[in-house]
Amino acid sequence: MKYIEKLASIRQQMAENRIDAYIIPSSDPHISEYLPKRFKCIEWASGFTGSAGTLVITQEFAGLWTDSRYFVQANEQLADSGYELVKLQVQGASEYAIWLSKKLTSGEVVAFDGNLASVAVAKSVQDVLIPLGIVVDGHVDLLSKVWENRPALPEEKAYLLDEHTTGQSTASKIETIKSQLAEQRVDSHFISSLDDLAWVLNIRGNDVNCNPVVLGFLLIKPNQNTLFISPGKLTDEDIHRLTESDIHVEPYENAIHAIKQLEAKRILLDPKRTCFAFYDAVPEQVEIVQALNPSTTLKAVKNKVELAHTRNAMLKDGVALTKFFKWLEENVSHGNLNEISIAKYLEELRSASEGFVNISFDTIAGYLEHGALPHYKATEESNSTLSSTGLLLVDSGGQYMDGTTDITRVVSLGNITAAEKEDYTIVLKGLIEGSLAIFPKGTCGYQIDAITRRPIWSTFRNYGHGTGHGVGFFLNVHEGPHVFNASPIDITIEEGMITSIEPGLYREGQYGIRIENLVHSKSIGNTAFGEFMDFETLTVCYISTDLIEKSLLDDVHKKWLNQYNAWVYEQLAPLLSDSESIWLKLKTASI
Amino acid sequence: MKYIEKLASIRQQMAENRIDAYIIPSSDPHISEYLPKRFKCIEWASGFTGSAGTLVITQEFAGLWTDSRYFVQANEQLADSGYELVKLQVQGASEYAIWLSKKLTSGEVVAFDGNLASVAVAKSVQDVLIPLGIVVDGHVDLLSKVWENRPALPEEKAYLLDEHTTGQSTASKIETIKSQLAEQRVDSHFISSLDDLAWVLNIRGNDVNCNPVVLGFLLIKPNQNTLFISPGKLTDEDIHRLTESDIHVEPYENAIHAIKQLEAKRILLDPKRTCFAFYDAVPEQVEIVQALNPSTTLKAVKNKVELAHTRNAMLKDGVALTKFFKWLEENVSHGNLNEISIAKYLEELRSASEGFVNISFDTIAGYLEHGALPHYKATEESNSTLSSTGLLLVDSGGQYMDGTTDITRVVSLGNITAAEKEDYTIVLKGLIEGSLAIFPKGTCGYQIDAITRRPIWSTFRNYGHGTGHGVGFFLNVHEGPHVFNASPIDITIEEGMITSIEPGLYREGQYGIRIENLVHSKSIGNTAFGEFMDFETLTVCYISTDLIEKSLLDDVHKKWLNQYNAWVYEQLAPLLSDSESIWLKLKTASI
Repeated sequence: MKYIEKLASIRQQMAENRIDAYIIPSSDPHISEYLPKRFKCIEWASGFTGSAGTLVITQEFAGLWTDSRYFVQANEQLADSGYELVKLQVQGASEYAIWLSKKLTSGEVVAFDGNLASVAVAKSVQDVLIPLGIVVDGHVDLLSKVWENRPALPEEKAYLLDEHTTGQSTASKIETIKSQLAEQRVDSHFISSLDDLAWVLNIRGNDVNCNPVVLGFLLIKPNQNTLFISPGKLTDEDIHRLTESDIHVEPYENAIHAIKQLEAKRILLDPKRTCFAFYDAVPEQVEIVQALNPSTTLKAVKNKVELAHTRNAMLKDGVALTKFFKWLEENVSHGNLNEISIAKYLEELRSASEGFVNISFDTIAGYLEHGALPHYKATEESNSTLSSTGLLLVDSGGQYMDGTTDITRVVSLGNITAAEKEDYTIVLKGLIEGSLAIFPKGTCGYQIDAITRRPIWSTFRNYGHGTGHGVGFFLNVHEGPHVFNASPIDITIEEGMITSIEPGLYREGQYGIRIENLVHSKSIGNTAFGEFMDFETLTVCYISTDLIEKSLLDDVHKKWLNQYNAWVYEQLAPLLSDSESIWLKLKTASI
Repeated sequence: MKYIEKLASIRQQMAENRIDAYIIPSSDPHISEYLPKRFKCIEWASGFTGSAGTLVITQEFAGLWTDSRYFVQANEQLADSGYELVKLQVQGASEYAIWLSKKLTSGEVVAFDGNLASVAVAKSVQDVLIPLGIVVDGHVDLLSKVWENRPALPEEKAYLLDEHTTGQSTASKIETIKSQLAEQRVDSHFISSLDDLAWVLNIRGNDVNCNPVVLGFLLIKPNQNTLFISPGKLTDEDIHRLTESDIHVEPYENAIHAIKQLEAKRILLDPKRTCFAFYDAVPEQVEIVQALNPSTTLKAVKNKVELAHTRNAMLKDGVALTKFFKWLEENVSHGNLNEISIAKYLEELRSASEGFVNISFDTIAGYLEHGALPHYKATEESNSTLSSTGLLLVDSGGQYMDGTTDITRVVSLGNITAAEKEDYTIVLKGLIEGSLAIFPKGTCGYQIDAITRRPIWSTFRNYGHGTGHGVGFFLNVHEGPHVFNASPIDITIEEGMITSIEPGLYREGQYGIRIENLVHSKSIGNTAFGEFMDFETLTVCYISTDLIEKSLLDDVHKKWLNQYNAWVYEQLAPLLSDSESIWLKLKTASI
């Protein structure tokens, strides 16, 4: 069925059900960022494959609201779909609710499937529309009626990790969570988010591409903790180990019933990590306390075992990347490499490492103008063949049993221009100033974002995405609660957090530049002015120096770069062949 | 009556009225920062004279919660008062509510006078305590019962400004506000904040020390706008002019009745700029929309007339300050100058200028260790005599008919030490990097704060106050909604705003450094990466170069400083005597 026909079917269903506007968010009952196939509703309906967006459909108009990371991609993918791109001013905002408030009048009906929208999203829509007399119905699943052969839920196997890997037992994690619940005078807690579930239960799986998570819900009550999971996913031995950690196992689909019949005084639900359908199912006599999942904050702070493993995973990643860039340099002139083939080869190199599980997200290998699409994924149609000219951006990562990686590098394939060098050097300055930041305890991500952007802003340049995101330990490559972006999010940077620093510059139709390292925030100690922190760079991969316009760098930048590249060589050389080591020595020579 | 006796009286009243905890906020029915004498409750009760704090009293404990700006001062002023200093972690936060939640149990009663607390403060207390079963009563004025000879409300005269001064008529301002109310589907609006009132009505007065405001309330309704003001404050002519602008005048004390009898569908109240008593008096059938006063945002963006006037006021201020620092340098060795006498002389110099009305806040002249108290005001007891050694910090400002100024300079009176130079130079770097910031439209104050602090943080130093505050046009020296501080406040910097940039460093018991200029944010124009903005420095007064450790400055800092000082000389020389001009030429010589 063509997208335009699907849209017609949806509109017919809307008319039959007297729905004036239908909202399709990009989510699932676990408020995941990357979705199981069953929940890739926006892709099914419109062809748009970006990881963030919202479809809003009326009889007169159908639109995709998405943010600047996806403008170019959405324009291409939505052609002839019947949907128009509506540019979000603020990433993640519910600006379509304002649009609906202007299009609809009192008594008209807006509907969505409460399994696909977080409590926060549902509330933000309700808050705008209900005061205007517009009816908001969050219990309407129109898609299942028109989606032929909608994929079932995944039935991949899951497995438990031991304490040597995670550094903390499930029983200990549950105990910590329960003490935080007690502080908030809450007796029950329901966890929907899959990375929280994976962290608390030291469980991993393969239900979502690139995220080693398993579909499930966890209900924590004073006398019983219940994991709702498809029974075929776990071995008897793992079920036994869970029972020993005081985790009772029940079928996945029982979760909604357990919530409907919940006996509790106060339950903690995370409005950004719980879907509206479950929130709305909580019995009236149970008070809902809306707060961040305690596990989200706990998970973000890596323990020493997790950090040590992650440093090891970084070495493996660095070896794979060094081999990759050497191979690329030596083979690009043959004319038979393309964006898809190099991504595949990079995955092969990573998969040769011990403990490799999967890539941590779809590799972004963007050659020339494709580099200007921050979330580009090559398709058979778009796939560019590489030649010995221009910039190639490679943003990639791995899931290893001992850590998650995420790294972006840009290399020149030849014929470097002055404009490319200038842009590259300015992005590098941003990376360096962010990496060199020294900041008092209590600093939040928006302050690191400003410090990273300052040298870029000062040249009248900017990038339309955040400076960095939290990264899990053998878990999701994007994890909260902390983030380095311009939004005023009041989450302090804590010792043990892993975050990316990834400034960029994008010249539409020409090229894109982004340089990304992962950093670990750590305390430096106390001073007369309080405790200060700084960053330890975890990523171990050389930064190209041939693209640098040296006159734009201050001594402090050059010093950082030379020290970093020297450290990369020192770390990786023992793990490389002689020829690779010699090649890397040249790449990491001081400027 | 001693403070300890007053505390006993309050506790007796609490016992008689079965109140377990009594809160005394630092505010008035207009949520003013600087208070008429009648509302200086905290000073009356405890002796603490800082402009921000909250007293909380139980039978067992009495405490002042205040922020780091006032720690040293509070420790001194609270000695023998019966009150203990409780250090706020976050400036302006209601952390005492958390404390109360731990001390009190269900059924106990917390009370305060709803005329002294904003809606936001009252709500933040209620939100913490009511879920725990603690009773919160916002209608208890205990102070009037124990405060003998409590001062009456001020009865100073008020006056209207003409459009040549303000650049916009009252009728036009009301029209703009009404169009914003219509967008929010609100039919009524109540303005309590005195600076909003002054701006909307182009009215000024003398009811609050240093703030040229007049006590009143403004009720905007579809068919009638009413100013509630003491009738003796205005001339018949001014009342006539107001009537012509469609403003009806009624006695001040009628305001609360007008709210109690309000006939409206939806009223806009600013929860941070309206007291709880008025909020609570709104009839139940009237829906309250809580949002920023439209006038607060409008007022912050100065029009061209206001900016031109302000630039002129800056010249007058710069002349006064130049004469002051020259006189200081020439007279300090005589040994007869002290903190109070120099503040008085500076006020005399300012008052010689055309259009001078008052100082814009109590001058902070802090010699040696007094400089380390960011909000120090010399008293007869604390007053230090100056000698030819050490640092003097002078933070002062003027209210002129054509603008409000606020400036801090630090000068050495002799025997400069290396530590002083290092601290001074690092603060100066912060000022320069903040002043040089280039940033995209949409940037908020917390981003400028981070950019200003970065070079200070990088030396493991920090300051415990915000980087800057909005400044009015011949109005309050502190005005919102914008602010340059670390808090995640989502207010964008708009063209036409005036804000201070004032980094500092404080060495308790030794000295304090702060350098402050006012800047005007303006658009630079559009680029491939959107619209960018920068700052125009408005303050015209030389920055001491003898305290600079040149090796700590980069070329970019030196260039800014030399250009700034040269510009100051160019601006002021024509307005100075020959000897003053020669003196300033030396002070502004390039480094």
